[in-house]
Amino acid sequence: MTQAAVQAQEGAFTAPQPLVVNRDGASPVIVVCEHASCFVPAELNSLGLDAETLKSHVAWDPGAMKVAEGISERLDAVLVASQISRLVYDCNRPPAAAGAVPERSEIFDIPGNRNLAPAQREARIALVYEPFRASLASVIAAAEGPAVIVTIHSFTPVYDGVARDVELGILHDSDARLADAMLMNTHWHTSLDVRRNEPYGPEDGVTHTLRENAVPAGLYNVMIEIRNDLIKTPREQDAMAATLSGWIISGLRELGVAIPGEEV
Amino acid sequence: MTQAAVQAQEGAFTAPQPLVVNRDGASPVIVVCEHASCFVPAELNSLGLDAETLKSHVAWDPGAMKVAEGISERLDAVLVASQISRLVYDCNRPPAAAGAVPERSEIFDIPGNRNLAPAQREARIALVYEPFRASLASVIAAAEGPAVIVTIHSFTPVYDGVARDVELGILHDSDARLADAMLMNTHWHTSLDVRRNEPYGPEDGVTHTLRENAVPAGLYNVMIEIRNDLIKTPREQDAMAATLSGWIISGLRELGVAIPGEEV
Repeated sequence: MTQAAVQAQEGAFTAPQPLVVNRDGASPVIVVCEHASCFVPAELNSLGLDAETLKSHVAWDPGAMKVAEGISERLDAVLVASQISRLVYDCNRPPAAAGAVPERSEIFDIPGNRNLAPAQREARIALVYEPFRASLASVIAAAEGPAVIVTIHSFTPVYDGVARDVELGILHDSDARLADAMLMNTHWHTSLDVRRNEPYGPEDGVTHTLRENAVPAGLYNVMIEIRNDLIKTPREQDAMAATLSGWIISGLRELGVAIPGEEV
Repeated sequence: MTQAAVQAQEGAFTAPQPLVVNRDGASPVIVVCEHASCFVPAELNSLGLDAETLKSHVAWDPGAMKVAEGISERLDAVLVASQISRLVYDCNRPPAAAGAVPERSEIFDIPGNRNLAPAQREARIALVYEPFRASLASVIAAAEGPAVIVTIHSFTPVYDGVARDVELGILHDSDARLADAMLMNTHWHTSLDVRRNEPYGPEDGVTHTLRENAVPAGLYNVMIEIRNDLIKTPREQDAMAATLSGWIISGLRELGVAIPGEEV
């Protein structure tokens, strides 16, 4: 179905296209931010949520986009980001997953996602997920050599009423090469409480982007989860981008990946 | 002259030996902290200074030792540190330099260093500088392969009444290889205001340790100057150690230096 055809349908809305920043970046790294935005198109009537919930971690990953931009800038890497709330469609979930258009998120019901007609759900997929997937695929295809996929997320310090001690998660699916290389060198780069596959792991279905775009093609990949209370201010976001940038480069060098502009 | 002979002389004092931490560290890096301590032996009567001055940057590099320890720990590197104030003898100056036993430091006169008899000056050299030089030389000689010399210093945010904007200085003498490799990658590692050979440079005589121990032997080397208001708390010191550790490793990898435990 074309986008125009979808927009004429039941459940249609005006959807901003995914953002592609620094498309000609020299780095093999492609930074991905699926939960960059809390924007909900007007046609969806705020999904029945109040303003506070729509600005909370339920709707997006606060701070993640700023960190992703900082990494993109530092590494001269292209950045692909969704510009729509994950409550409309979670671009880090496949269409078949119930959580792709969640009826509930943590402790919040999402009224606007309940009892969707098939055409409404189809519109979410066609207007949010498909353009995002196509953008990311085209960026990967345009890479000169093998790309490296790095996805940037943030998580809430308190979930379901339980405080989380983990500060940074290094996540992977079946291909742990880059995660392993980074975890081996944690102590060189940060004093934060860093853990493998926490607070989520592949069993929670959070590695879709990696599984879809990196694992089958054999591309190095990692998903980074940052506790969002650590990246509230521009200064904190920038410092986190610096920490992660150096650490990603460090991991890639262990794997023998050539970094442009490195030859001395 | 033996140390026992010196101690029997005019101007003698009881001097703590240089500290060597993690002597069996696996890293090629040797961390050096010449201005780690503000200790003035009792026999020297506080050099005629008040308690406040004796705790100020005039007497040592506040915070530098904590950062040096953090780097030593993270990199598994040996650390060599003086345990005596630079006002007694500045271990980063050759005996021939007037500033080795300074009569004046910034805006402060050092009464206890004025009009020293030759034997008094000789005692400072024999009891402070010579043991420091010998410790560092023995650590370098014991290294399995070519060592890498990294000296850690801090500087005052306001000097002679002028505020300094520079936050981190990457300093070198005639061999800029490691400094160049680090400066090339500044943007990956930190958002601080980083400058080459600021707030001091080789023309100020501050690269003595590098010039004495690294340059003639062809060892990679760098001197790092940290503005001391950035490393006041344990948390800040630890974060700075993490930033510098990752950045040093990053620079060494550019130069093709093998890092133990890195093979994946």
